[in-house]
Amino acid sequence: MERQDKGLAFMLQYENIAWYEKGEVRILDRRIYPRQVEFVVCKRHEEVAKAITDMVTQSAGPYTAAAMGMALAAYECRSLSEEGQLQHLKQAADTIANARPTTASRMRLVTNGSLQAAEKALQEGRNVSDAIVAYSVNANDIRYAKIGKIAEYLVDMIPQNGTVMTQCFGETIVGKMLAEGRKQGKGFRLFCPETRPYFQGARLTATVARDMGYDVTVITDNMPAYVMQREHVDVFTSAADAICLDGHVVNKVGTFQIAIAAKYMGIPYFVTGAPDIGHPTVDTVHIELRDPDFVLQAMGVKTAADGVKGYYPSFDITPPALVSGVVTDAGILSPYDLHRYFRDGNAGEYGMVV
Amino acid sequence: MERQDKGLAFMLQYENIAWYEKGEVRILDRRIYPRQVEFVVCKRHEEVAKAITDMVTQSAGPYTAAAMGMALAAYECRSLSEEGQLQHLKQAADTIANARPTTASRMRLVTNGSLQAAEKALQEGRNVSDAIVAYSVNANDIRYAKIGKIAEYLVDMIPQNGTVMTQCFGETIVGKMLAEGRKQGKGFRLFCPETRPYFQGARLTATVARDMGYDVTVITDNMPAYVMQREHVDVFTSAADAICLDGHVVNKVGTFQIAIAAKYMGIPYFVTGAPDIGHPTVDTVHIELRDPDFVLQAMGVKTAADGVKGYYPSFDITPPALVSGVVTDAGILSPYDLHRYFRDGNAGEYGMVV
Repeated sequence: MERQDKGLAFMLQYENIAWYEKGEVRILDRRIYPRQVEFVVCKRHEEVAKAITDMVTQSAGPYTAAAMGMALAAYECRSLSEEGQLQHLKQAADTIANARPTTASRMRLVTNGSLQAAEKALQEGRNVSDAIVAYSVNANDIRYAKIGKIAEYLVDMIPQNGTVMTQCFGETIVGKMLAEGRKQGKGFRLFCPETRPYFQGARLTATVARDMGYDVTVITDNMPAYVMQREHVDVFTSAADAICLDGHVVNKVGTFQIAIAAKYMGIPYFVTGAPDIGHPTVDTVHIELRDPDFVLQAMGVKTAADGVKGYYPSFDITPPALVSGVVTDAGILSPYDLHRYFRDGNAGEYGMVV
Repeated sequence: MERQDKGLAFMLQYENIAWYEKGEVRILDRRIYPRQVEFVVCKRHEEVAKAITDMVTQSAGPYTAAAMGMALAAYECRSLSEEGQLQHLKQAADTIANARPTTASRMRLVTNGSLQAAEKALQEGRNVSDAIVAYSVNANDIRYAKIGKIAEYLVDMIPQNGTVMTQCFGETIVGKMLAEGRKQGKGFRLFCPETRPYFQGARLTATVARDMGYDVTVITDNMPAYVMQREHVDVFTSAADAICLDGHVVNKVGTFQIAIAAKYMGIPYFVTGAPDIGHPTVDTVHIELRDPDFVLQAMGVKTAADGVKGYYPSFDITPPALVSGVVTDAGILSPYDLHRYFRDGNAGEYGMVV
């Protein structure tokens, strides 16, 4: 295997998540990272939406990609009238926000933020694309700061030299959790389920942990219950694609199953992130069904015989009864009391922590 | 992908499971079946033991391979004295029975049966290898008949047009269950978790079901809970590598986790097979830890970065509280009352149904 791994620091630099410059958006292809370091180059905002749909970037990546897609859309319409530009941008916002149904509500926050930045730039006669990029950078600065606070609260829940089980790839939160653990001298170890069919756990979470000097072990997705029982797992944690205000957690398929096992074992499950104002209840959640053929292969090699069907729900829903706490930048909340986050005025300008 | 698939009928013909002839044992390589149809050829009984250790054959395959390995051992020592032959065969029995620690107790039944056949043949001046092959064929005949009865009891538990979830590859029981379902006109459909890291569910169970004309869907190992919830799974069923007399079930890793999810969902879990007299309690079970690097690849392609560890328990243990019934050839028993199987005299000559 050719190793071109550049590590977490590389991966989480804003320029390497997704970046608009000179009429194109470059997005780090996380489907093949860290084995290969390649960027998907988009010349139209529709291509950015398609890249998001096609899982070129994931975890929090799509939110940055969405803003950069809006900057590209602004470039596309730069010679139109002010009204024409705004119309084009609104259409682009619809296309980009709906690239993945499960996260449309959070994506809309990004496209709305981009539209506001664009309107202001137009009023002030500034370059619209640059204004949207600046908005995205600022939103990421705020997000990274909030995630730093989340990491502090989360690491408080991990005992000294404890064992943590993750699920999928929490991106920034994983990095911040590990940095905070180091700062507090906690010395915990990690078990990362591989997260089929894309292997985000094996490829990304585990690489991040290794890069930061942690003891990290990858297991297949059928092993969490066994590992919880035999290896004394102290905490199960994951990020979320959406945390509904009624305490239901939408995250990478498998989270539900691990949470059930954790409950059976008496192990707490902490989900990280802010409640999602766009999902007042679980009823607004649409589970994305992806190309079923994708579960019939692994790392590009076909596993099943012809004539066998596949089934590929991207996410599952963990009910609040299985969630021990929602770790937000404003502390750890009960999944049954998430309105508190907004009552206490924590949502902030962008209302989003991923 | 080159398709050379010859189907279940081919795979379960005694000659194609494992077969002794003219000083060698040929074992169908199930690690690559059905994509490729190849046989591992063993010239010494130690090579047969190694093939069993290396998972060349699995499910019930190792029991046939073990007897054929004993036939090969008899060939190896054919020119020794009667005493010398028995001594060689006893040593071979030790080597073969211990090829995989988790199933050593059941393997010992096969090597003991082979030794008895050998002693009788020596007394009567018959060819010892042929006698052991004849013993193995007879044991398989009895086993297949018992499994036919198990299939009848199991299919009774599946509702008309119901949905069944499997785990790993139950070999004969899967084939017999599907044949019995067809006979009863039940028309059920199957969801097969792929069963990492070897993909037995995707490669073998699903192929068997397809060959028999069933609607079969492969899912990744992180999806069972979601599928149970959304696709109205009626029954979860698996075979077992060992069913302890205290009701603990030892089976392919992942079974425990699916059983926990099934319990949470109110879905019954039926394990098929006879209780294992060699495991009076779970305390005698040794969980085989296999090469950890194997979980860091998929279909031969590396998934994780260097410096990341792997962990590979082959099996897990499902406690009796999660088992709805043990489906034996003598009916469905409570996991808390497995001594009944032996009290009622069902163990038979070979005491084993796999």
